Formats: sequence, structure tokens, C-alpha cells
Amino acid sequence: MVLQHFTTLSDISSSQLNQLLQLAHSITECPDNFSDLCHGKILGTLFFEPSTRTRLSFESAMQRLGGTCLGIQSGATSSTTKGETLADTIQTVSCYTDVIAMRHFHEGAATLAAEVATVPLINAGDGGHLHPTQTLTDLLTILETKSRLDHLTVGFCGDLKFGRTVHSLIQALIEYDANHFVLISPTELKIPDYIKNILDQHHITYTESETLEEVIDQLDVLYMTRVQKERFFNEADYERLKDTNILDLKTLEHAKSDLAILHPLPRLNEIHPEVDQDPRAAYFKQVQYGVYVRMALLLTLLEVDHATDNID
Amino acid sequence: MVLQHFTTLSDISSSQLNQLLQLAHSITECPDNFSDLCHGKILGTLFFEPSTRTRLSFESAMQRLGGTCLGIQSGATSSTTKGETLADTIQTVSCYTDVIAMRHFHEGAATLAAEVATVPLINAGDGGHLHPTQTLTDLLTILETKSRLDHLTVGFCGDLKFGRTVHSLIQALIEYDANHFVLISPTELKIPDYIKNILDQHHITYTESETLEEVIDQLDVLYMTRVQKERFFNEADYERLKDTNILDLKTLEHAKSDLAILHPLPRLNEIHPEVDQDPRAAYFKQVQYGVYVRMALLLTLLEVDHATDNID
Amino acid sequence: MVLQHFTTLSDISSSQLNQLLQLAHSITECPDNFSDLCHGKILGTLFFEPSTRTRLSFESAMQRLGGTCLGIQSGATSSTTKGETLADTIQTVSCYTDVIAMRHFHEGAATLAAEVATVPLINAGDGGHLHPTQTLTDLLTILETKSRLDHLTVGFCGDLKFGRTVHSLIQALIEYDANHFVLISPTELKIPDYIKNILDQHHITYTESETLEEVIDQLDVLYMTRVQKERFFNEADYERLKDTNILDLKTLEHAKSDLAILHPLPRLNEIHPEVDQDPRAAYFKQVQYGVYVRMALLLTLLEVDHATDNID
Repeated sequence: MVLQHFTTLSDISSSQLNQLLQLAHSITECPDNFSDLCHGKILGTLFFEPSTRTRLSFESAMQRLGGTCLGIQSGATSSTTKGETLADTIQTVSCYTDVIAMRHFHEGAATLAAEVATVPLINAGDGGHLHPTQTLTDLLTILETKSRLDHLTVGFCGDLKFGRTVHSLIQALIEYDANHFVLISPTELKIPDYIKNILDQHHITYTESETLEEVIDQLDVLYMTRVQKERFFNEADYERLKDTNILDLKTLEHAKSDLAILHPLPRLNEIHPEVDQDPRAAYFKQVQYGVYVRMALLLTLLEVDHATDNID
Repeated sequence: MVLQHFTTLSDISSSQLNQLLQLAHSITECPDNFSDLCHGKILGTLFFEPSTRTRLSFESAMQRLGGTCLGIQSGATSSTTKGETLADTIQTVSCYTDVIAMRHFHEGAATLAAEVATVPLINAGDGGHLHPTQTLTDLLTILETKSRLDHLTVGFCGDLKFGRTVHSLIQALIEYDANHFVLISPTELKIPDYIKNILDQHHITYTESETLEEVIDQLDVLYMTRVQKERFFNEADYERLKDTNILDLKTLEHAKSDLAILHPLPRLNEIHPEVDQDPRAAYFKQVQYGVYVRMALLLTLLEVDHATDNID
Repeated sequence: MVLQHFTTLSDISSSQLNQLLQLAHSITECPDNFSDLCHGKILGTLFFEPSTRTRLSFESAMQRLGGTCLGIQSGATSSTTKGETLADTIQTVSCYTDVIAMRHFHEGAATLAAEVATVPLINAGDGGHLHPTQTLTDLLTILETKSRLDHLTVGFCGDLKFGRTVHSLIQALIEYDANHFVLISPTELKIPDYIKNILDQHHITYTESETLEEVIDQLDVLYMTRVQKERFFNEADYERLKDTNILDLKTLEHAKSDLAILHPLPRLNEIHPEVDQDPRAAYFKQVQYGVYVRMALLLTLLEVDHATDNID
């Protein structure tokens, strides 16, 4: 599979996506088989907007492959403060590295960057817009915990209005057969109409609910999200809505025994820590799968021949 | 030796401590024998409170063993700013790494972190409380310069009231036979009563002095410390006390020819730079020993089999 | 060649400089031949003043050689904030690393640091004073694009008054035969008298011009520079002068077909992005050569025997 850049999931075909997930699955089975495949390769991590979790996940992925990392952790220290354009920064960092993972506060920055990068460029999040490696992580986690990506009833709970990971994952899951969605949120944080339109166009069934308790028994997968303070203009609204639906052991009593609970993290109160020990809690495994799927992405973009290493 | 975490010296037995120091001693003799033992291993350095010196010492130790590092350099950039609990951060970073060195501004944070970490956790300092790898460093330096840890007259000079490295080292040295302590400080910075009580309970002899000149001739080891401005509420007190006892070549004239001078660094005025060239100055060797003892700790926690490599 | 430190170009002989450039040239031909020569070596990057571009270039160079890096990215987080002297910091970091690249805001800091460092020290810029690895980069770029460092007509355009890279490169180029300089700037940003005096003493010919258009047809090399806002006391002066001479495709029409256009980057408006695709644009190649020449410098200072590796 040839993949030049990875800026959005809609750029890659279903077949490419499935190859990527298949490779990631092989990595989950024996990460050590892949431990020196990127020896001598350099990942540039350009985080113009800080995101420790995503940055460390990429760095871990590259180091697990035997490669090394360099980069910036926030825009405050870079040459952009001297007025350099993003295009010039990307062309410069292309000379230092073999692949770049970039996070930027401007929507569309990744697309612009990919146009001038002379090495593969990965979008590690651009503004409130896209964060496609999180969606890869979510897909791999569902695949590993449920053994399939189709015929699933998937609940999304929390901030469905602003939550970009929710929007992306829904759009990814409609490509697989017979998935059904349950959208759980207070009225103020309901899923936007443009997502509903996509669901309707694809003849995907979905139901809406204000409370988790009413619908948790139907779910194969529950995707919890944080209500993000930074999306609200009004602190009072945030305080009122942030703890609307909390997942605790009591709520879980009504759930299926093989439910998979996901969360992109960080979490605040929306999942009680008492749930962490429940075998259905998959959100820390999800962190680990995030490393594996990024390893798969790096191998694919760097066109490292992993087939023989893997077969032996 | 099996050691799950390293949060405080009081968690490990005398026998474990001596094994660790013995391993560190082997490293001092030929560091190159250990240069690839942690190939493929990742150290996470989580410094919620900045400490360049300690962080770089850990990173150097891991890199000298052939491993790699990732982490955060200050709490300002981490997900904790989004309200994530320390427990969640630790569980997340456990997925990215093989061992974690954490510095935190809260006393007791390391103990909490060790409870949830799924990889070995090292306390790299928690508040004004503990900094056990500094004590390991101090012990190794005494062992390497004096060839023993017992039957020593050890002077501590400077801020004995707030200096946590002093308190830790005294408690470590009382485990060895027949050490005698000389506690040198102005009245306002005298050793706290709880340490005196410990000394009395163990029937350890000690004397107190306000000036270094009076007692320097008795010492086998002199442990100098910085008077830390950040411990004072009152700038005038700080200014008055900070230069009470200064070690210079003139003071050193009265010292034994095989005195070992230690300092945890950074220093301000308490040791005159003219002392640096004196063969008794051991404080920069101490920096080097700090790397070696952290190498030994990483090898022990990661259960890397170094025996065969070392014997050959 | 034995080179203990690299703080200024005037410390090394013409013969040493040419050996260094020759080694860098070998690296440009096949960087992979050099990919593991610094395995196990650690570069300390001490950037008391942030400079992302220079730091990443050094880190890339060390990683391309198979070594690793550790360090600080700005003075704000280091022990110097606790009052430690630069000399102590350097002696400490010498214990963690095999070679240090230091950037400091004080003129002369690198010379002081080299006096106490127990590993080789590289000046990565000290204040507005020196930045000798930029000059090495510029020399290698001219050598690679023009195949010689002599008998060239070299134009310098932009801020010739404050631009330290201009002053350094002129002084380096007068060591080679029959170079002629064209100094292009508005009156307010003319080259300082001390440089003119040096040119006169060496009987080097030069002309001055206020506009690029008038003289571009004469040039073999054009070294463009940014007018740096931070050098001006007065915003109005900066605004008036910053766009005096802009290189665009129209201006380039009058240039030689084998002109080499250099720029130390970052650029603002002084080179229009439409020039980037012109084969005469060498400023992004220059970024790549900057990595290669730093690889050569690291190999030389670490006395790594690259000859045999290279010949095989």
C-alpha cells in the first residue's frame, strides 16, 4: 500500500484503511517483531498546539519501532514567532526528519502542510476540525474488543455537538455494514444536523436519548466523551451540563456483559474510577492500541517492508 | 533482586540497597559493558515540577544503557491542565513506556502513582519530601571515594533544617556501623528534632557546631548544601544566613588530606570555585555517579539480566 | 584532525576548515554510510536562548549518526534560575553527555563554557556575536552549488549592519582567492566600518549598492537576509526598511542562470515564495547541508574514525 500523507480519513480508501488496521492487529499480537524496523528513521513532532497525550503516543510508536524523535512541544518556541510561514517551517523540518506528525490550532493547516512537505505528513489534529489518528485508535480498539467493525450497536455519550472524535468515528463506522447508533446527550449538546444528514443519506438507523440509563442495555460499544469547558462561552452552562450522564457501576448493571467502554481521554467525572477495574472498561487498552495503530501508520508511510519480518 | 517500584529508600531492604550499590560500582568500573542492555526500552520522564538536573541525569542513564526517553518537562503542558487526575496520567503513560521517573510538587504523589502504574515507577522527588535517587547518588559517591559506608565521621553543613537530601542521607548512613555525624549550621537552620530523635534511638553519636572552621579537621566526608531562598518567607533572613559557612581553600587547610567534599548541587557561594581543582572536591564526580546509580536502578527495575554481560 | 572545541571559526586553521568541509561533502554523497558512527554517543543541547531551527538541526545531525540527544530548550527551566553559574552547569552537563551544543544570550558565553567543559563544546550562537555553524552551513552550500569557494562574486542583501551571519561569512570567504563582494542594503543598514577595514586590509574588492536590481546580473552567489525587527528601537524605521529589496521572479530575470540564492532562514518577505521552485533557489538545500556539516563537526569533535567506514 502506498500512502503519501495522512491528513484525513476521507483521503484513504476502505481497502487502505483495512490494510492499516490489519497491520496494527499484527502489531498487537507481537510488538517485539516490529522493534527495529524504523532503525535510523526520525519522526518530527511539530505541536504548535500542545497535546501531551498525542505527542507521547507518536513518540512511543516511533521509539517502539527503533526510530528516534525531535520536534517542538508548543508554538511559543518556534520560528513562527519570528513571522515564518507554516510552509517554510514544514519545508525546513522535512530536511531534518523522515516523517512529520503535526498538530496545529488552525483548521486546514494539515492539508496546507502536506502540500509542501517533502516527507510524509501526519495530521495529529488541526483545531476543532480533524484528529484522524484518534479515529484509527478507536476503530482498532473496537476491532480488538468486539472482533468486528460491523453489525454493532454503538452508543455515543456526552458532548456530541462539539466532540470531533465522535463525528469522525461515526463517519468511519458507517462504511461498515449494519451498524446502529444511539446518540446520548442533553439537548444542548446534541449531534449536529450535518451528521444526521450523513446518517440519513446512508440509510443508517439511529436513536437519540437524553439519559444513558435508558439505553445502556442495547449497546455493544459505549463511546464516552468529556464535556470540554473550552467549548463554552458561559461557565454556568458548562457546570450545568458537564455531569449530566455519569457512567458508574450502578449504571453498568444494566449493560451487556460484553460491552466495550471507550473514551478518548482525558476524562473528568463522566466515568467513575470504580469502573476502571470492570473488564468492560477498554479505555486504557485504547491508549495502548493508539500506540500500535500509530506504529502501523508510520510503517506504512515510511514504506518499511515489514512483511518478511512479520512472517518469520 | 526483584524491585517493583522505587519511591522511597525505606521501601527497600539493606540487602537490596547493597546489591544496587554493588551493581552501580560495577558500572563505574566499565560503563561500556552496559551500553546496550536497555536497547528498545523506553523511559518516561514525568516532571510536573521542573528539575533539569535530575531529568537530564535520568535521560543520560537510560541513553547510556541504549534505551530512549519521552516525557514532559513541566506540568504546564500536560493533560492535568485539562483536569485529568494523576492516576489517569500515570496509567496512560504506563502504556507508552517501560519505566517512569516522576517528579511532582505534591508530597506523597509518588506513592499514589506507584499504586496505579503498570510499569515500574521511580520517585524523582515529591515536593520537599523525598528525593531517594539523590541519596543513592550520595551513598555511591561516599563508597567510591572512601571505599566504605561505615566508621566515617560525616559533616553536614548549610541548611540542615529544610535540606531534604541531608535528612535522607543521615537516615541511610545510620544503617551502617559506627558512623558519627557533625551537624554544622547557624541556629536558625539547625537539624529538626525528629532527626535528632532518630539518631538518639539508634544510639548514634553526633555533635553540633555553628562554624565549619572549628570542626573541619575531624571530618572524613563533608556534605555541603545550599541555603535555598525559596524556603524563606523573609528575604532579610535569607541574605543574613546564606553565606554563614563558606568552604574555601583557606578553610580546607585544616581538613584531612583524604576528605571527600560532596554537594548535591546547584551551589551558590557556599563552595568557592577555587576548591574545584582540589583533589578532595568530589561534587562533580558525584554528578557522574548519579548517572551510574540511576543506570543500576533502571537495570534492576527492568530486570535486565546484566550478570553475564558483566562477567565476560 | 584534532579539534577540542568549536566556538569560533577563527580558532580553526584553513586546513582544518577544509578537512571539515571535505568530510561534509562526503556525507552529502551518501549520508547512510555514516548512520551508526555515533551509536551510544549523547549530544547535550543547551539552549539558554530558544532557537528551534538550530536545535533541531543539531539533533537531526546526531540522530542521523546513530546517537541520541538530551538537553534544555530554554533558560527558563534550568538550574541557572536557581542562581547556578554557567561554569557549573557546563561541568554538570559534561557528566551527562559526550559533546555539547550551546546557545546563549551572552556574547562570549561559549568561550567561557569551553574553558570548563570536559567534553567538546560547540557554539550554537552567543548573543548577536557569533554563530559559526551557520557559517559552516553557508560555506558548504556555496561549495556544493558552485563547486568552489574562490573566484566568486558574492552579493549580500538585506540587513548588513546587524546581520552576524553576513559578517561571519564575509570573513570566512576572504580566506579564499579572488572573491569579490557586492554589498546591497539601504543606507541605514550598511555594513559596519570594521568589516570594510578588514576587506581593505586584505585588499579585497567590493562595491556597494542600495538596490538589488542594479547589481544582480553580476552575482555568482546571492546571500539574502531578513531585516530583524528585534534590532530596531523604532517600529516606523523597521516598517520602512524591511521590504526595501525583495527578490522575486521579475528581479531574477536579470540574474545569471547559475546563480545560487542562499538565505539563513527564517525569511519574511525578502524572497517571494514564487522563487522557491526556481532551480537557483538553494535555501532549502542549505537547511539540508546544515545537517550534513553538523554531522561532520560532531564526527570530528568526537574523533570517530569514519575513514574506514567511508572507504568500504
